[in-house]
Amino acid sequence: MSDETLTRLSETIRSRLNGDPNASYVAKLHAKGEDAALKKVGEECAEFIMAAKDASHGGDAKHSVTETQRVAEAKLVAEAADLWFHTLVVLARHNLGAGDVIAELARREGVSGIDEKASRAKS
Amino acid sequence: MSDETLTRLSETIRSRLNGDPNASYVAKLHAKGEDAALKKVGEECAEFIMAAKDASHGGDAKHSVTETQRVAEAKLVAEAADLWFHTLVVLARHNLGAGDVIAELARREGVSGIDEKASRAKS
Amino acid sequence: MSDETLTRLSETIRSRLNGDPNASYVAKLHAKGEDAALKKVGEECAEFIMAAKDASHGGDAKHSVTETQRVAEAKLVAEAADLWFHTLVVLARHNLGAGDVIAELARREGVSGIDEKASRAKS
Amino acid sequence: MSDETLTRLSETIRSRLNGDPNASYVAKLHAKGEDAALKKVGEECAEFIMAAKDASHGGDAKHSVTETQRVAEAKLVAEAADLWFHTLVVLARHNLGAGDVIAELARREGVSGIDEKASRAKS
Repeated sequence: MSDETLTRLSETIRSRLNGDPNASYVAKLHAKGEDAALKKVGEECAEFIMAAKDASHGGDAKHSVTETQRVAEAKLVAEAADLWFHTLVVLARHNLGAGDVIAELARREGVSGIDEKASRAKS
Repeated sequence: MSDETLTRLSETIRSRLNGDPNASYVAKLHAKGEDAALKKVGEECAEFIMAAKDASHGGDAKHSVTETQRVAEAKLVAEAADLWFHTLVVLARHNLGAGDVIAELARREGVSGIDEKASRAKS
Repeated sequence: MSDETLTRLSETIRSRLNGDPNASYVAKLHAKGEDAALKKVGEECAEFIMAAKDASHGGDAKHSVTETQRVAEAKLVAEAADLWFHTLVVLARHNLGAGDVIAELARREGVSGIDEKASRAKS
Repeated sequence: MSDETLTRLSETIRSRLNGDPNASYVAKLHAKGEDAALKKVGEECAEFIMAAKDASHGGDAKHSVTETQRVAEAKLVAEAADLWFHTLVVLARHNLGAGDVIAELARREGVSGIDEKASRAKS
């Protein structure tokens, strides 16, 4: 895994926005308008929450005991990836990307603990 | 700006989970249980969606015309950062982190366009 | 409009859960499992939020000025209906329905203002 | 229990919007602006999803076996009530209410099954 995976992915998404909707998932989603991408963000957020609950409850009971924990964790990671991916699609529509989000998180990094919380514009 | 910021942030979050709730926002949130962190994910997701709508509608009308676009974009980035941050808090509770999400996104990167969509476990 | 619309709708949903997935939207959704219904709740919640933002920003700019406000309000109501409908589908899976939600809201009704807030289990 | 509870609650919410923020939860939330109310909708949606997962997983493990199911169901109903309540607060800001949502659901009621799905503007 390269250090630049997210920024490169972000650039790839931006370059595909206006591509062929029949050849690219991103182009297809972009062609449907912003609400379609934001609907996906809401959906992926719900799935991330469900995956976390499943993982905390010991898996979704569809797998054997020995497999359950590993499967539940992989699901949680996959849902986080889906959520971040669709966040990037929305950002790309506004000419923004992973670099901007990472810069913002880095900016906050100097401030820590309770102070960090207070430094944010909202709770 | 590299993904290392995210993996480092992810490690910082993990190291703070069981810290002093009075000194760390992460420790305070962790002490409240997983539902509190997931509630924040849902809240930040809603705020990200609102910020995207504001940016698309030309800002939230609280700022002068010349400032509006810049402010709306900064807000969208800040909300994405909040959403990703709280995603990392939830992942940290499961001994997972930004590295896992980035690895998953990198794994998918070889597969592109419509095929990429099909390769994912769910829509 | 009858006073009992919601409780009747709730009963209809319950009666359709195990019906023919090819003949009923509810049966089709039910057959996919609870996560599918909860994913819809998350999606409809995102759409409700977007519709409210559009209405506050003066519509979605796809309609003439004179039509915009009416269209935006109808959209907001339709999204609320979608959200409530899918909430009822999830409740039906647990043998619960609109009557239970209405009874809970009626129970809280005696308590008002700030006290009402304090009386709820969570913020 | 009738839908009149909802339309009455809806009217109460509307009448309190511009009341004393120190005496009314609704007035307090209204004074913070629409985003505050929509943030609550997102948060309550997340809590509803979590409560459904807890109920399906046999409760949240904080209660004895005999109490768990009853507690989990009461929690699910309470979260649905919270979600509907905050939906009504948002609608009230647009001079809309429970009567409009119920009328929309009643309008759809004649159309059933798969056709009902197709009749809706969006999936």
